[in-house]
Amino acid sequence: MSDTEALLFANETFYRAFADKDMDVMADLWSRDNPVSCLHPGWGPLFDRSEVISSWAAILSAPEAPDIKCVNPKAHLFQDVGKVICFEQLEAGLMVATNIFVREGSLWKMVHHQGAPTSAVMPVQESPAGGSIH
Amino acid sequence: MSDTEALLFANETFYRAFADKDMDVMADLWSRDNPVSCLHPGWGPLFDRSEVISSWAAILSAPEAPDIKCVNPKAHLFQDVGKVICFEQLEAGLMVATNIFVREGSLWKMVHHQGAPTSAVMPVQESPAGGSIH
Repeated sequence: MSDTEALLFANETFYRAFADKDMDVMADLWSRDNPVSCLHPGWGPLFDRSEVISSWAAILSAPEAPDIKCVNPKAHLFQDVGKVICFEQLEAGLMVATNIFVREGSLWKMVHHQGAPTSAVMPVQESPAGGSIH
Repeated sequence: MSDTEALLFANETFYRAFADKDMDVMADLWSRDNPVSCLHPGWGPLFDRSEVISSWAAILSAPEAPDIKCVNPKAHLFQDVGKVICFEQLEAGLMVATNIFVREGSLWKMVHHQGAPTSAVMPVQESPAGGSIH
């Protein structure tokens, strides 16, 4: 698996944890060793890891927890840091997201997420295997 | 100047270029050597550097180009990559942003921006010198 494939796999793990409402996987994905941040749509920034994890626990356990699907992720690697820009397809509409990961040993751990609504038109899925690679 | 101070200075350069509608500074700040991306509020993602620069030229030259002020930037460093999370104060309301920079020689160059509205309460400015440092 190439570095970029591993990065996209970490990104896919985030969306699978979200869709499956799997808090263990979500919590494990977020870095314990590097400073994290999270910008949920409409919220103020969260910086404390425990606040970030609590926010996801609240979102994933809510009765109205949304189904979500990542579409067209594009990965950019900068040595041990990776950013993934993607669309998020929800029943309520389309969002765009910035996800940042840091390599810790052999794993990519999440250090930042920002998601926000977009009025962009839904793109055509470029690759069923996990999106295009830059 | 510490690495974090230099990173926050690059972030401040971005907002000064925005507020001054200085397209030369804005264009110079965006990396020519690394892959860039930009998520304007409501837009779809831009990945091509020329598209990113053109989008800023359109925004900064528009008669209704907004005044903008960066508030409470928080910088996280990962060797040669830095992320800055901050509020953006505009007349129309408050936004939150993710800005990513990569060190190229002695300079920090921008490789990503996402800005989105927030309903968060305006934070108290923590430091008039450019925000807090994690």
